[in-house]
Amino acid sequence: MTDLSVFTDPRSVAVLGASADPAKWGYWLARGALRGAHRRTVHLVNARSTVIEGTPSVPSLSALPEAAELVVLCAPAPTIPDVVTTALEQGTRGFLGITAGLDGVSPGLEREVAAQIREAGARLVGPNCLGLYDAANQLELAWGTFAPGSLAIVSQSGQLGLELAGLAAHAGLGVARFVSVGNQSDVTARELLDDLVDHAETRAVVLYLESFADGRELVATMARLRDAGKPVVVLTVGSSEASRAAARSHTGALTAATDVVAAACRAAGAVLVETPAQAIDLAHLLVGSPLPSGRRVAVVSDSGGQGAVGADTMARHGLTVPRLSAATSASLARLLPATAAVANPVDLAGGGEQDLATYARVVDVLASSGEVDAVVLSGYFGCYGADTPALEERELEIVETLAGTARAHQRPILVHSMSHDSTAVRSMRAQAVPTLHTIDAVARSLDLATAIAETRDRPVPVAVPTPPAGVGSATDYLAARELVGRYGVAYPRAAAVSTREQLRAAIADLRAPYVLKAGWLEHKTEVGGVAVGLDAAAAESSWDDMRGRLGDGAYVLEEMDDQSDVVELIVGARHDRSFGPVVLVGIGGVHAELYRDTRLALAPIDTAAARALLGELRGFPLLTGWRGRPGVDIDAAAEVVAGISRLLVDRTDVVEAEINPLRVGPGGAVAVDALVVLADTADTTTDVELTGAVK
Amino acid sequence: MTDLSVFTDPRSVAVLGASADPAKWGYWLARGALRGAHRRTVHLVNARSTVIEGTPSVPSLSALPEAAELVVLCAPAPTIPDVVTTALEQGTRGFLGITAGLDGVSPGLEREVAAQIREAGARLVGPNCLGLYDAANQLELAWGTFAPGSLAIVSQSGQLGLELAGLAAHAGLGVARFVSVGNQSDVTARELLDDLVDHAETRAVVLYLESFADGRELVATMARLRDAGKPVVVLTVGSSEASRAAARSHTGALTAATDVVAAACRAAGAVLVETPAQAIDLAHLLVGSPLPSGRRVAVVSDSGGQGAVGADTMARHGLTVPRLSAATSASLARLLPATAAVANPVDLAGGGEQDLATYARVVDVLASSGEVDAVVLSGYFGCYGADTPALEERELEIVETLAGTARAHQRPILVHSMSHDSTAVRSMRAQAVPTLHTIDAVARSLDLATAIAETRDRPVPVAVPTPPAGVGSATDYLAARELVGRYGVAYPRAAAVSTREQLRAAIADLRAPYVLKAGWLEHKTEVGGVAVGLDAAAAESSWDDMRGRLGDGAYVLEEMDDQSDVVELIVGARHDRSFGPVVLVGIGGVHAELYRDTRLALAPIDTAAARALLGELRGFPLLTGWRGRPGVDIDAAAEVVAGISRLLVDRTDVVEAEINPLRVGPGGAVAVDALVVLADTADTTTDVELTGAVK
Repeated sequence: MTDLSVFTDPRSVAVLGASADPAKWGYWLARGALRGAHRRTVHLVNARSTVIEGTPSVPSLSALPEAAELVVLCAPAPTIPDVVTTALEQGTRGFLGITAGLDGVSPGLEREVAAQIREAGARLVGPNCLGLYDAANQLELAWGTFAPGSLAIVSQSGQLGLELAGLAAHAGLGVARFVSVGNQSDVTARELLDDLVDHAETRAVVLYLESFADGRELVATMARLRDAGKPVVVLTVGSSEASRAAARSHTGALTAATDVVAAACRAAGAVLVETPAQAIDLAHLLVGSPLPSGRRVAVVSDSGGQGAVGADTMARHGLTVPRLSAATSASLARLLPATAAVANPVDLAGGGEQDLATYARVVDVLASSGEVDAVVLSGYFGCYGADTPALEERELEIVETLAGTARAHQRPILVHSMSHDSTAVRSMRAQAVPTLHTIDAVARSLDLATAIAETRDRPVPVAVPTPPAGVGSATDYLAARELVGRYGVAYPRAAAVSTREQLRAAIADLRAPYVLKAGWLEHKTEVGGVAVGLDAAAAESSWDDMRGRLGDGAYVLEEMDDQSDVVELIVGARHDRSFGPVVLVGIGGVHAELYRDTRLALAPIDTAAARALLGELRGFPLLTGWRGRPGVDIDAAAEVVAGISRLLVDRTDVVEAEINPLRVGPGGAVAVDALVVLADTADTTTDVELTGAVK
Repeated sequence: MTDLSVFTDPRSVAVLGASADPAKWGYWLARGALRGAHRRTVHLVNARSTVIEGTPSVPSLSALPEAAELVVLCAPAPTIPDVVTTALEQGTRGFLGITAGLDGVSPGLEREVAAQIREAGARLVGPNCLGLYDAANQLELAWGTFAPGSLAIVSQSGQLGLELAGLAAHAGLGVARFVSVGNQSDVTARELLDDLVDHAETRAVVLYLESFADGRELVATMARLRDAGKPVVVLTVGSSEASRAAARSHTGALTAATDVVAAACRAAGAVLVETPAQAIDLAHLLVGSPLPSGRRVAVVSDSGGQGAVGADTMARHGLTVPRLSAATSASLARLLPATAAVANPVDLAGGGEQDLATYARVVDVLASSGEVDAVVLSGYFGCYGADTPALEERELEIVETLAGTARAHQRPILVHSMSHDSTAVRSMRAQAVPTLHTIDAVARSLDLATAIAETRDRPVPVAVPTPPAGVGSATDYLAARELVGRYGVAYPRAAAVSTREQLRAAIADLRAPYVLKAGWLEHKTEVGGVAVGLDAAAAESSWDDMRGRLGDGAYVLEEMDDQSDVVELIVGARHDRSFGPVVLVGIGGVHAELYRDTRLALAPIDTAAARALLGELRGFPLLTGWRGRPGVDIDAAAEVVAGISRLLVDRTDVVEAEINPLRVGPGGAVAVDALVVLADTADTTTDVELTGAVK
């Protein structure tokens, strides 16, 4: 692990471009740096002499008595090269590059400066960043105001990072470390994340990235953070763009860049969210509360309406609000007025108002019942003391009890309080009872936290080499069949038929009905290069017809798959430029393409993981037997998915592989098409023989 | 329209059960009532003499010198009947019933008290309500603290109403009127809504209801509010429950109660939301801003990251972020630094910071371009003055300009500001520039507002009689065909075959292949009561087989539909207990049932509306020609949908009608099944003849 301590706890700091004008960045950085002046030497540097918050500036770095360990670059871009040279000569070890536009001074300057710094054994964060904050070390080198806490924020967009910090502050959540990574000319976001693994104060991380170089290394880092008990919440952009992959297969068209990021997060025990607000709401749950180990939620409210809205909102987020057992309901009934609802959602019917302890007793019954994985308390709790000061002390006692219950039973207790901020609300947050102002935020955060918990024990996918760039070229059908077949994928018997004699031999050898395919064409169906359901005579006439239209070529005669009660799947894999091989499975045809019923994972995955992926499809009930039809061989399908995922890891010369459709019946899975795209390069060779022998 | 002014501007109020204890409701109601003491006489009544906020109470109503026009009932339930009698004798015209549990005193008491009040010519709001607030009349008869504004809140759950009011206050949105309707023993939520049509201060309404008696009347009221420029935002519960309709058809199983509420809202120009926070976020847009007339959005940010997150978030909510024309981009480029992005999202690249007027200029170019229906400004705007007081005045000038731009071009300008609350943010809200703290809330509110705007000009569905209760009984297949056929639905030719002679005559008359159906059975397919693809011999043997298994009955021989390139739809209608007839259309089979690809509308609808409904299906591209297949006859399908919707309006003895599937091909739509359920009652008769004649 790189030592980045010069950025988080330097012994001395110099702020270049310090300013007395509150509208300038140099003012905020100087003011922030001075707040740590009791812990470290702080120098303010400005060409024009000025006094900032009572501290005079010096005109240049050379005027300093000693090197500043960390130099904050907030001066005009043209001055930066000289300043860096001087600082390096003095012995500066770190540069925090706020200044943007170095390449506007001279093209390539940014890279040159970064190289100069690295070669001197120093490091650079940025340039074009908004700064850095470390709570424990009282290091404030950023625009904005931070409150200390246990959340780390690492952001490629400075202002989006500040939005995250602002939302956290507004919700009473403090920050342990904030880093705006800027252009990452030297120090990368991944290194800064890695530095958080051993950062005692950080309990959870929010990461905003727009680009993912070294995706697999990032996955490994996020998994290390997960294993250190510090889940990572990832925010990225690009979901509304078309897939950036220049893919040949449907698999490519069906996997947007953000889908791959989501799959990478699942593999690493991290979770992808959509907006800054989602990230911060979720963070409440990640900085101390137990995580839910399942999707069963009890909803408790002192209002029937809020309880019902709560139950509906949980269900909309994929959580369940199970009916409680008779025994548990009876326990609740003993604590509550006769008009209370005790099945779930639980309506206290005034029981809480009569005695605040009722809240704690009801939650304890639920948390210890074994029937739910989380308890959501929705309504007025958190407002008692604020509206009626005489009740404040009692309410705070109940908060203590709730926090103890969550710890004792290792179940999260989430509170949706009608108070945005009260002594009780602050106390709950301080005691790891996540408290949010909307039921929406509670439900969404619980859903996302469950997603994190579900991936807690998954192994981290292996690192994989990156294939050469280029769109690649497709092999012919028989070669694709052969390669895919080595990974346990069954095909109907087939034969290459380039001549009429071969066609007749194949007809004699294979059983009808036949399928005739123009095997060398990538999009056979679209050009009339596939004829199905042929008897011997039709096979010959189709061959004549196709040759007339499409010319000579590597035709294939294949036995037509005759399974009944089949569900068609699409199974594919491709090399993602950032994250390496990914594998996709979907319900075939219109379901995958129009209803987007597909799931994606980083490759490779084993059969169990493939089965789990199938289980996540909305159309999964089709596989288990829909409306009286027999269930199909799900294990056989899972083996194909796992096999295809291994293929792309084993063979870096293969950039895409796809079976569409895979026909899965009660007795097994049979592939009836194959697409394999090989990398466009001379130095990776394929050992696939273009064999035409009858199999 | 009922005169409810006694509840909103009484000349005198008496609070029964007024209390000096801040933990009691009687305290809050007394305190609130006293705040209006300069406008009206306020009496506090408590059996034990007490002084509340300096005002002494009287021991009973009889101690008052004159009748209180409005009496607030906050005394113990057993005392209520006597108090009501006394008040009515004195001449009280209105009762606000806070007290709950009258039926606990004696069963049926609540209804008796309500009847007594009505018979005396007075009215009752509640009981079991949390009170009422009217800003303009300074009437505060509720728990909680309200700020005056232009939002009306009508809630069946008192505390959920207070949550709505609290969220509004937290977001700087004031309330014009708040009514907790309680048990609606006399005055209904609908009456209170109706009273808002002419309430000058109300600009938008949030309604929370758990039950919908007289649904069509409610629809008419909401439509009147819409026509008065006061859109209604509806919140309800029950989406996570299975449909409460005891329906026989798939249509029933596919329409949850909340789906019907959503359809009712669409018909009335209202919109159904999921949570209180969604309602209040949306309300920002409804209290003065122009509504978007389409889904095209320009996203402007001073941060590339926030702009990209903004664009993604819009897309996730069904909005589009179109690429701007070259001319518009060029106009923007002239206003911005060279590094700015000008295609959409627009990244100011520091242009806003250099000159705050840039924000206004860029927004004006976009709002006047004709290329977008709304402009979203996301980022730091709203924080300038707060962080740098010297900039405050300038920022407020820009706010004025933005508000003027929205008015001039009748385009909503929404601001996502990193400041939750600043002078600039408050100024924007005051000038109908909706300003929210998260981009999520902006996107969702814009989506919902578009949904309201889209239904602005729809006619209100007609009122319809309610059919008799009961689950009804299905007619046989031929009767159902015949009835459905009168509404323009085409069927293959068919004949009733009860004897072998009739079977042979039908075989001779109809063209093969045939379908044989056990027409009197409701779930024919499940019990082997349908045989398809039969030639003459197979028709006879199938008939023998079915008769052996299912016995004698009204069998039907039908020509098998031989259209190719068919898309199967489900078309159904049923009588909803609250909202009357509704019509459903879906992509058939697994798409409707597993992927929930169905849409619902209040019946009747015309062909154009039916076509629009079809267009909302995710699977709609299947109808226009999917992957090279020919498009099907969408107009024919729409006519069937409209026809079925009329059937249920014309015939109140029909409680359900369904065609599943309707086979729609390039040349037309043919129904191949029919289910008609008639009401269980002797007093509605059907004129459907159970005819077996060949058609």
